[in-house]
Amino acid sequence: MGDTVTLRGGAKMPKLGLGMWKAPKDVTSSVVYEAIKTGWRHLDCAADYGNEQEVGLGIKKALDEGICKREDLWITTKLWNTFHAKEHVQLACEKSLKDLGLTYLDLYLVHFPISLKFVPIEKRYPPEWTHDPDAAKPKMELADVPLRETWAAMEELKAKGLVKNIGVSNCNCIALMELMKETKDPPAVNQVELHPYLTQERLLKFCDMVGIHVTGYSPLGSPSYVTIGMAGANESVMEEPLIKQLAQKYNKSPAQIVLRWGLQRANCSIVPKTASVNRLKENLALFDFSLSEDDIKQISALNRNRRYNDPGSYTEREFSQYWPIFD
Amino acid sequence: MGDTVTLRGGAKMPKLGLGMWKAPKDVTSSVVYEAIKTGWRHLDCAADYGNEQEVGLGIKKALDEGICKREDLWITTKLWNTFHAKEHVQLACEKSLKDLGLTYLDLYLVHFPISLKFVPIEKRYPPEWTHDPDAAKPKMELADVPLRETWAAMEELKAKGLVKNIGVSNCNCIALMELMKETKDPPAVNQVELHPYLTQERLLKFCDMVGIHVTGYSPLGSPSYVTIGMAGANESVMEEPLIKQLAQKYNKSPAQIVLRWGLQRANCSIVPKTASVNRLKENLALFDFSLSEDDIKQISALNRNRRYNDPGSYTEREFSQYWPIFD
Repeated sequence: MGDTVTLRGGAKMPKLGLGMWKAPKDVTSSVVYEAIKTGWRHLDCAADYGNEQEVGLGIKKALDEGICKREDLWITTKLWNTFHAKEHVQLACEKSLKDLGLTYLDLYLVHFPISLKFVPIEKRYPPEWTHDPDAAKPKMELADVPLRETWAAMEELKAKGLVKNIGVSNCNCIALMELMKETKDPPAVNQVELHPYLTQERLLKFCDMVGIHVTGYSPLGSPSYVTIGMAGANESVMEEPLIKQLAQKYNKSPAQIVLRWGLQRANCSIVPKTASVNRLKENLALFDFSLSEDDIKQISALNRNRRYNDPGSYTEREFSQYWPIFD
Repeated sequence: MGDTVTLRGGAKMPKLGLGMWKAPKDVTSSVVYEAIKTGWRHLDCAADYGNEQEVGLGIKKALDEGICKREDLWITTKLWNTFHAKEHVQLACEKSLKDLGLTYLDLYLVHFPISLKFVPIEKRYPPEWTHDPDAAKPKMELADVPLRETWAAMEELKAKGLVKNIGVSNCNCIALMELMKETKDPPAVNQVELHPYLTQERLLKFCDMVGIHVTGYSPLGSPSYVTIGMAGANESVMEEPLIKQLAQKYNKSPAQIVLRWGLQRANCSIVPKTASVNRLKENLALFDFSLSEDDIKQISALNRNRRYNDPGSYTEREFSQYWPIFD
């Protein structure tokens, strides 16, 4: 199944995980089941993806059939923005555990360094970004919960055994620097957008220095964002002449070249997503070749600081609130 | 003397201030005196600039001669990184007040969102970036003081009347967002690097939305950084054809065009520096003309996200510690 990375604290996480964002409910359980059957052992979920129950069914089927054991799997999921207050973190975690059909998570991440007003689970789940989606103009309503408060509650989940490891997502250096001052147990992982158009060399170097592992989401760049209007149709990194040329050189697909680049970078893992069984096999076949140092550098040079998942770009348009966390 | 901006809380700050960074000790007091005589009313100082005593002498001479009164002046200075702990903030403020010969500051800023190990004033002042500058390899030594702790101490200075207004410097959006969750008295000002090659539109828009005024330092861009190896000799924005062309159009110097652009941007003030008496006059003559909306836009389009004062670029090389606060 490929390489693992050893996180702060000693846990070994598979470097390649399957991202569940945008997996449609009707196929999610079969995708998860097929993925585990194909050899995937790391699933990257989130309450916000709205498909944890279906992921759970897929896991259950695979475990019931004896394809692997629970301890062979690495299950990550994420705390949504509306559950940041100390009294809501465990609530959210237990809901995810129940939906996934698990007794513990391998890794629980704070999805965004953005705290929103609480929405009761029985009122709407997942709560998404706006407090009242039926309003004439739905608005994101911020809550004054500092990240350090949320983090202290995350630490409690770990102490209680509900989660084995804790981390954050979408944090830049200053958010990590300030959080590290507030805790003796800093994030094991920071999951951020990473691909050849957004290489984030400095963030990676900083995280490596302070012992925070970095998982790259959207490792193929634009594809997931085109249909939701967050990327143009013509900015796929797989169409780069360099990537096509390397695909020929290594006798791999362009996607495999880009994913392998993501895996070979220091201190990095990746969580590509797909709902196609063929792609499950293709995206897993990344451990029988290596890109040369020079090819890695050439791919990294494609960087154009192009961020697709940027609240600074969509919060105002979609949620009537400008919240540029990366600027 | 030009326009003022009304800060959160009601204070009126002159939109144009004279930056004292790099003013050599031997000329500082006369520059300050000449500046006040020429009509400058806002001085932007910092403990770290190492010339507060000389600034104080210049202020004293001007006040003694009756050129203006203390209340006509706006004096800003900045808390250095080694004084972030709650027990050191007042100490540092009182040292600056003493050196400047003042009983209160109009504005006191946290210089960087970086907390360093305390250096006693009697040991070395200003303390600069490294704890032991005589070491074979001087090293920046970080302290775990959260910005919120420093901020609470800044609020106390205000309550005690030592400072009228408080703010921060070199903060990006997430640093401001987290700090705002921790206080009922958010920063009145965020002073950051701003020039046509680093326009920071999103940070400005965010600060405007949350009521934090933005003061731009290095409003002319590269010039101050060339001799200290932090900018190339050939990247002066004043050499841009557009700027030269606008200088002709408005019958002003290229520097005046760039500074006027900085002043006309929404929610912005600027603190250019100079040690030349002619330039003191030139840089002050910014209130008898206006750039058109279209010309403002054209200048803003010169943006290339070029940051000269970036700890991510110099901390590792100079202080053996990689601390990329803007990444």
